[in-house]
Amino acid sequence: MLSDAGVLNAWHELGMKRKDIERLAHFAYHPKDIAATIASGSYLTEGMVIAPCSMKTLAAVAHAHADDLVSRAADVVLKERRRLVLVPRETPLNLAHLRNMVAVTEMGGIIMPPVPAFYAQPKTLDDLVEHTVGRMLDLFGVRSAKLKRWQGLKRTPAEPD
Amino acid sequence: MLSDAGVLNAWHELGMKRKDIERLAHFAYHPKDIAATIASGSYLTEGMVIAPCSMKTLAAVAHAHADDLVSRAADVVLKERRRLVLVPRETPLNLAHLRNMVAVTEMGGIIMPPVPAFYAQPKTLDDLVEHTVGRMLDLFGVRSAKLKRWQGLKRTPAEPD
Amino acid sequence: MLSDAGVLNAWHELGMKRKDIERLAHFAYHPKDIAATIASGSYLTEGMVIAPCSMKTLAAVAHAHADDLVSRAADVVLKERRRLVLVPRETPLNLAHLRNMVAVTEMGGIIMPPVPAFYAQPKTLDDLVEHTVGRMLDLFGVRSAKLKRWQGLKRTPAEPD
Amino acid sequence: MLSDAGVLNAWHELGMKRKDIERLAHFAYHPKDIAATIASGSYLTEGMVIAPCSMKTLAAVAHAHADDLVSRAADVVLKERRRLVLVPRETPLNLAHLRNMVAVTEMGGIIMPPVPAFYAQPKTLDDLVEHTVGRMLDLFGVRSAKLKRWQGLKRTPAEPD
Amino acid sequence: MLSDAGVLNAWHELGMKRKDIERLAHFAYHPKDIAATIASGSYLTEGMVIAPCSMKTLAAVAHAHADDLVSRAADVVLKERRRLVLVPRETPLNLAHLRNMVAVTEMGGIIMPPVPAFYAQPKTLDDLVEHTVGRMLDLFGVRSAKLKRWQGLKRTPAEPD
Amino acid sequence: MLSDAGVLNAWHELGMKRKDIERLAHFAYHPKDIAATIASGSYLTEGMVIAPCSMKTLAAVAHAHADDLVSRAADVVLKERRRLVLVPRETPLNLAHLRNMVAVTEMGGIIMPPVPAFYAQPKTLDDLVEHTVGRMLDLFGVRSAKLKRWQGLKRTPAEPD
Amino acid sequence: MLSDAGVLNAWHELGMKRKDIERLAHFAYHPKDIAATIASGSYLTEGMVIAPCSMKTLAAVAHAHADDLVSRAADVVLKERRRLVLVPRETPLNLAHLRNMVAVTEMGGIIMPPVPAFYAQPKTLDDLVEHTVGRMLDLFGVRSAKLKRWQGLKRTPAEPD
Amino acid sequence: MLSDAGVLNAWHELGMKRKDIERLAHFAYHPKDIAATIASGSYLTEGMVIAPCSMKTLAAVAHAHADDLVSRAADVVLKERRRLVLVPRETPLNLAHLRNMVAVTEMGGIIMPPVPAFYAQPKTLDDLVEHTVGRMLDLFGVRSAKLKRWQGLKRTPAEPD
Amino acid sequence: MLSDAGVLNAWHELGMKRKDIERLAHFAYHPKDIAATIASGSYLTEGMVIAPCSMKTLAAVAHAHADDLVSRAADVVLKERRRLVLVPRETPLNLAHLRNMVAVTEMGGIIMPPVPAFYAQPKTLDDLVEHTVGRMLDLFGVRSAKLKRWQGLKRTPAEPD
Amino acid sequence: MLSDAGVLNAWHELGMKRKDIERLAHFAYHPKDIAATIASGSYLTEGMVIAPCSMKTLAAVAHAHADDLVSRAADVVLKERRRLVLVPRETPLNLAHLRNMVAVTEMGGIIMPPVPAFYAQPKTLDDLVEHTVGRMLDLFGVRSAKLKRWQGLKRTPAEPD
Amino acid sequence: MLSDAGVLNAWHELGMKRKDIERLAHFAYHPKDIAATIASGSYLTEGMVIAPCSMKTLAAVAHAHADDLVSRAADVVLKERRRLVLVPRETPLNLAHLRNMVAVTEMGGIIMPPVPAFYAQPKTLDDLVEHTVGRMLDLFGVRSAKLKRWQGLKRTPAEPD
Amino acid sequence: MLSDAGVLNAWHELGMKRKDIERLAHFAYHPKDIAATIASGSYLTEGMVIAPCSMKTLAAVAHAHADDLVSRAADVVLKERRRLVLVPRETPLNLAHLRNMVAVTEMGGIIMPPVPAFYAQPKTLDDLVEHTVGRMLDLFGVRSAKLKRWQGLKRTPAEPD
Repeated sequence: MLSDAGVLNAWHELGMKRKDIERLAHFAYHPKDIAATIASGSYLTEGMVIAPCSMKTLAAVAHAHADDLVSRAADVVLKERRRLVLVPRETPLNLAHLRNMVAVTEMGGIIMPPVPAFYAQPKTLDDLVEHTVGRMLDLFGVRSAKLKRWQGLKRTPAEPD
Repeated sequence: MLSDAGVLNAWHELGMKRKDIERLAHFAYHPKDIAATIASGSYLTEGMVIAPCSMKTLAAVAHAHADDLVSRAADVVLKERRRLVLVPRETPLNLAHLRNMVAVTEMGGIIMPPVPAFYAQPKTLDDLVEHTVGRMLDLFGVRSAKLKRWQGLKRTPAEPD
Repeated sequence: MLSDAGVLNAWHELGMKRKDIERLAHFAYHPKDIAATIASGSYLTEGMVIAPCSMKTLAAVAHAHADDLVSRAADVVLKERRRLVLVPRETPLNLAHLRNMVAVTEMGGIIMPPVPAFYAQPKTLDDLVEHTVGRMLDLFGVRSAKLKRWQGLKRTPAEPD
Repeated sequence: MLSDAGVLNAWHELGMKRKDIERLAHFAYHPKDIAATIASGSYLTEGMVIAPCSMKTLAAVAHAHADDLVSRAADVVLKERRRLVLVPRETPLNLAHLRNMVAVTEMGGIIMPPVPAFYAQPKTLDDLVEHTVGRMLDLFGVRSAKLKRWQGLKRTPAEPD
Repeated sequence: MLSDAGVLNAWHELGMKRKDIERLAHFAYHPKDIAATIASGSYLTEGMVIAPCSMKTLAAVAHAHADDLVSRAADVVLKERRRLVLVPRETPLNLAHLRNMVAVTEMGGIIMPPVPAFYAQPKTLDDLVEHTVGRMLDLFGVRSAKLKRWQGLKRTPAEPD
Repeated sequence: MLSDAGVLNAWHELGMKRKDIERLAHFAYHPKDIAATIASGSYLTEGMVIAPCSMKTLAAVAHAHADDLVSRAADVVLKERRRLVLVPRETPLNLAHLRNMVAVTEMGGIIMPPVPAFYAQPKTLDDLVEHTVGRMLDLFGVRSAKLKRWQGLKRTPAEPD
Repeated sequence: MLSDAGVLNAWHELGMKRKDIERLAHFAYHPKDIAATIASGSYLTEGMVIAPCSMKTLAAVAHAHADDLVSRAADVVLKERRRLVLVPRETPLNLAHLRNMVAVTEMGGIIMPPVPAFYAQPKTLDDLVEHTVGRMLDLFGVRSAKLKRWQGLKRTPAEPD
Repeated sequence: MLSDAGVLNAWHELGMKRKDIERLAHFAYHPKDIAATIASGSYLTEGMVIAPCSMKTLAAVAHAHADDLVSRAADVVLKERRRLVLVPRETPLNLAHLRNMVAVTEMGGIIMPPVPAFYAQPKTLDDLVEHTVGRMLDLFGVRSAKLKRWQGLKRTPAEPD
Repeated sequence: MLSDAGVLNAWHELGMKRKDIERLAHFAYHPKDIAATIASGSYLTEGMVIAPCSMKTLAAVAHAHADDLVSRAADVVLKERRRLVLVPRETPLNLAHLRNMVAVTEMGGIIMPPVPAFYAQPKTLDDLVEHTVGRMLDLFGVRSAKLKRWQGLKRTPAEPD
Repeated sequence: MLSDAGVLNAWHELGMKRKDIERLAHFAYHPKDIAATIASGSYLTEGMVIAPCSMKTLAAVAHAHADDLVSRAADVVLKERRRLVLVPRETPLNLAHLRNMVAVTEMGGIIMPPVPAFYAQPKTLDDLVEHTVGRMLDLFGVRSAKLKRWQGLKRTPAEPD
Repeated sequence: MLSDAGVLNAWHELGMKRKDIERLAHFAYHPKDIAATIASGSYLTEGMVIAPCSMKTLAAVAHAHADDLVSRAADVVLKERRRLVLVPRETPLNLAHLRNMVAVTEMGGIIMPPVPAFYAQPKTLDDLVEHTVGRMLDLFGVRSAKLKRWQGLKRTPAEPD
Repeated sequence: MLSDAGVLNAWHELGMKRKDIERLAHFAYHPKDIAATIASGSYLTEGMVIAPCSMKTLAAVAHAHADDLVSRAADVVLKERRRLVLVPRETPLNLAHLRNMVAVTEMGGIIMPPVPAFYAQPKTLDDLVEHTVGRMLDLFGVRSAKLKRWQGLKRTPAEPD
């Protein structure tokens, strides 16, 4: 699903249109199609990721104020106790943003800001994205072969300080 | 100031030792030097940035449990009502992390996760860092010439969807 | 008033269109007509029932986030301390749904899920609906002759256990 | 398990006695038998459904005030982090009812009022019950073949409004 | 309705048995008769007074933990938004007592301890009781002719201090 | 100490003036004398009783808004962790009254409404007062010989119900 | 009732003295006369309006800190569950002002700031006052003929945008 | 920015269309243009006033549920810790309205209802508006020459009461 | 006092009947004897231990829902500000159990789980029980000669690590 | 401004009368003069210090219960978001004192107890006062030349332990 | 992992040194090795048990104040929504201990005090430990053959009371 | 006990080393000696004073995060319900400092900032310290002969104002 804001983002950041993106997916829904299958808990899913997740959608989920299919589907995931992962890329955060994140966490959702994992020693922006996606999949029990997992740090003679 | 964990990070991520980093600063303090100038509100500063800010330091600030100079200096900044910016790069977040962020925000601090600003169309990891630093300086009223500010989005005939 | 989602429901469940339903009412308003009479407290009413009440409208009322005439009218009813009854038919419920119900109750509204009253020994779906409507009217002091009221249970020799 | 109130209900609504109902079950316990197997977490179960769940039992679970085997067994399910589903059929709800539902949800239980799912186009009361039971089983990962799942709504030329 | 504790009280304080007291009432219910008419909101009443109200019954009402007909009937009165008056005669009060009183008040009930109204210049214990009963009736809009209402205090030349 | 309102009460209810009452005490203070000994914690006392305690004084103690010597002295008793007993004779109670009572209890004070102890089988108003005073002294470890303590209830053949 | 601050206001804004204003009323009380009839719940009234309501009186009502007859009478209105309307004309508001308004609302009172109702198309200051008074009376079920009620907005061809 | 509701208001109250109003401004944005410059914190501003501020926009800001450019821009102002002033002209207020005002205040925003400042002795509606605007500018450190500031009140021999 | 559940426990764990245990006590009460001496605060005691304390009794005390003499006596101890010690042996704990423990602690009671004190180097189960009993008596100022008190740990040459 | 209690303090501690102190100030107001300039936000100031601040005034500010010019002026400072510093010299503190300090801090005020700064190595009482005054001025951006600022601690060979 | 306190305990209670205990484990980490594999969520584990869990470590987990590898690893387990079990053996408990337990439970962790399960009729201390370990494994879905599960209690003719 | 920071303070302010100070005490413990006698509740003490109490130790006590013997011993004092007095000399205070003070007070501890008692008319710094120590001892029931207690203030003809 691409919200309207998502369409603008995709165009601005990736040069892609809605249909370019929808073509990459197995299933695509229009955010206004509030009667789609995923709007009901009786339709079975494993869960849901919203990435990136705008502050508006975060708020809609936190208060169950589902005014489009994106937030309705997340609402359903939470009421059926399935996995929900939100990937907010706002910064800095105000009090309402953080209270909404607390609320979603109390409801059983997971807040996962896509902060760069420099400990994985990325070289490119793609490495960053790859890592974030790998960690996201982890939360669904899907193990990505590309994910560089932490192996601990060996202190060597040349170690700092 | 570099905490012990910071020293490990710097070595692992940047190949730099404590003294390499301290050399870059106008002032450097050891985190165990709890009697340093910045441990007292009577010493004047503009405020403080903790970047990156570990979840442990976030917690220490949120509860005023200042067990090293980093958290003590932040504690002082808050009691003197100066500017404090924390840059946490943890993900995903648990409930305690988020409650601590709420607490720091209520105390007057600012939570600023270093999420990538793709809207600024970065090409490299350095672009990302540059943008984050620019936004951080903004919060102190320091305007960075390198910061790419949002100019709005013109909807064009070729626009998506 | 029929919201857009309400229109879809009515069509799917009852095979009725908006105008079919509006024809049954003394007064009908379009949910987008936010300047209608009932949007102001100075217009006098007895109160309001929202049946069924979607989780989205519940949230809108609970937070006074009135983004259509339905939620605005409910907001007005609450500020004028008139009677408001919401009939949610969602299940199961997540934490946000329940917190919203608590909030509406604290504001003076009444949450009335249309659960089947088997104690009234219904035979058909219509009996269920009739009973729910009767109880709803009770809350406005309107007594429905069709409502089967509880008469107590006589324990008889043939009683169970 | 049938509470005393449950026995009255069963007799009044179904014309069945305790033993008639117990005969339908693989295991039956008397609500006063507080030393039964399910009163201890060391006895293994998948979880528990309380249907219907009186407001009194809801309160007992919400406050861990387990004064019979029904509420004790639910208390155990929650302390062992197994699945608990409560099916309350009270209406309207007062503030304490709703606060108790919030508390049970915070404890990990699920509140599932048996509201009629008209979107599944039931024809009889049995269809309603079937649907509710199917959704309840869903929450334990048991898929009922009889459950009519939502397939989405196709907007047709003859669509409303 | 007389609870079991109420029966003991009546016997100890008034020398009356359950049937002596029930004879004084238009309607009498046994507290164990949880299927009585007043256990359902569909049965119409004006409201309810519980006098005296034990700390146990106060708790049962505050948490909707209705384990007898007294607390169930009060629970119903609150869910139907009718008037409920509780007359607790416990002293001193612990924190739970007071929190329960707050909860009942938030639910719409009224806490009315039968403290002596010395301003009405009672001469006997009966005067005290009369005054308390008169004030209780006031809360239902029933005006007792025997109630001595405050007429203000005229400061006279002989006034104190 | 007699507040101004206390002076009016005493005159209206007892026909006594301030000086009549002050004559009965070992120590008397004027409520406006905010520099009296008991306004400082360094002056030693066992604690304090405020009887009767108006809703205004209760509020003053609950919020440490000490605008006369009565509330200041109570404030001191609480900060020095000595015993404080308040005897409110208001009825019915609103939400603020009850929240104030909760607050005082959380601060370590004791709320003791002078409800009639009918279980002690009083014959006169004086018996009531005597009992209340005896119980009040109990809270300071002072045992009144006149206090009729509960001896339990023997169930006899003639017992009720 | 005119508080002392009210007397100053009346003089400054209207050029009227206390007695000029008291002459306009059926009943007048001095705010220091804390033993007046309306200081007791046993004296019957319909409720109370405080207009304008200073932030000090708002606080006194919110915390039941009744230090004059104005706040005492409001306290009584709330404990007897009668109607209370406060008309605050402070701006901007700090956190304590708003928390007090929340508290009064939770207690059953109504906060009604006298903001200008431009939708009623007033021409003069008197129109404004008239409208506010009319809406205030509405809350007591008294319908003012002079009140211009909202009739909805007809969108015309010449409508904006 | 003029929201849709704002356009209706402007037409009804002022007889002005969107473009009439936009012509008066240095910068104008359409509320649906969510990609405008002010939607990003990297675009520099002094802050923002929303006047009048509907209850819906207040709610959107309070919960960070930014569903148009108005609420998004306010959300940005709060996350960048700039000045935000909301001018709500709703009355009376319900609990959700007030809780939202508390939330915005806790987030650093300012609630400023445009109540008439009669102490400034206005003669016309324009005087009222002028005063409110002057006070609003004060909050940004902009001093309006037209603002009539309070000079204190001299008590004169002819003073009241 | 032995509750009914206590009787079962005693029989199962110790092979003792109620009367065997009552024979060991100076005073014994039946839990249903709610009119016993200890049900009134006017009867003097030092305080009370409930060991073991079931989760149901913990809940009853935490909410003042005293439905037998055990919880009533504890309620009295708390209202008279005497010492109350609860010894819960439930594990693991759910959220309601822990919230109840918090509530009892806020009320002045003490939660003392009988965890084994391995630091006292017990050899047998009896040593464990002895230690727990000794610590329990400590809380009443009664010093048990058998209690092995901690003497500190001397670090010796053979010390670990 | 000197409150009445302040006048007593000044006399007792400094041997000064109100007029002696007022003579030292550029502006002086009587605490009863509630119509003074500083009682309105439209009168411009930098902020306010209350030193010493009694627990009563702290409470008045925390709850916006402004019953004299001191607390009214502080209330105004907070609503205009100017700087407010309170200097409480009470000890020990009870729960209400501390809750009030929390409330004032949440409102934007600053709690600054005048504890002796021994790290500045004072020799006399005057040194203490000087230091406290210097730090107070710091909070307004006024730098006192007399203030001895912390220079850090050099660990020397002779350092302790 | 053995914390420093853990090393002391092991030596005192078991006569074992760190390396004796580490030899029993498949994996061992030093609590100061904060860069070990388990300090990152990207390293996969099933969860974690901390047994025994000191009050200090409980606090560290509850507030995400991870100052060693033990609390950091627990913090990671919670952010990745894996299973965490804490086994506290403190007694009695103060308010902060209990609040921390509530917090950990709200975060998804499990509090499991090692109270003796006398219902399993242990004969030795080893039986106790065995039982506790068995129950702990249960929480990870690992079934211990040695665990004596509750089989219910048969009431026999010789049953008590 | 002297913490490390305490050692620095003592050296800087008093020119004393750890051993100089330990020599003044009957018992001395090293803050790292977490296995000392006072780390267990089974070791009997009267209570504990921490003077001065750093903000870090305050936080450790408030959250039971006992990372040295100072905070552990305080934690023990609170769990055994003995007297704990903390003497914080921080100023100004931020929100976390104050919330920690509230938490300690709720746990039963006493916050006693060493503010100068000018009402006792001190002449030297030693007088100040003497007074603070005397008041501290008061809280343990130890009466210091040197403590100058308040004797009230006599208003004389020469009194101020």
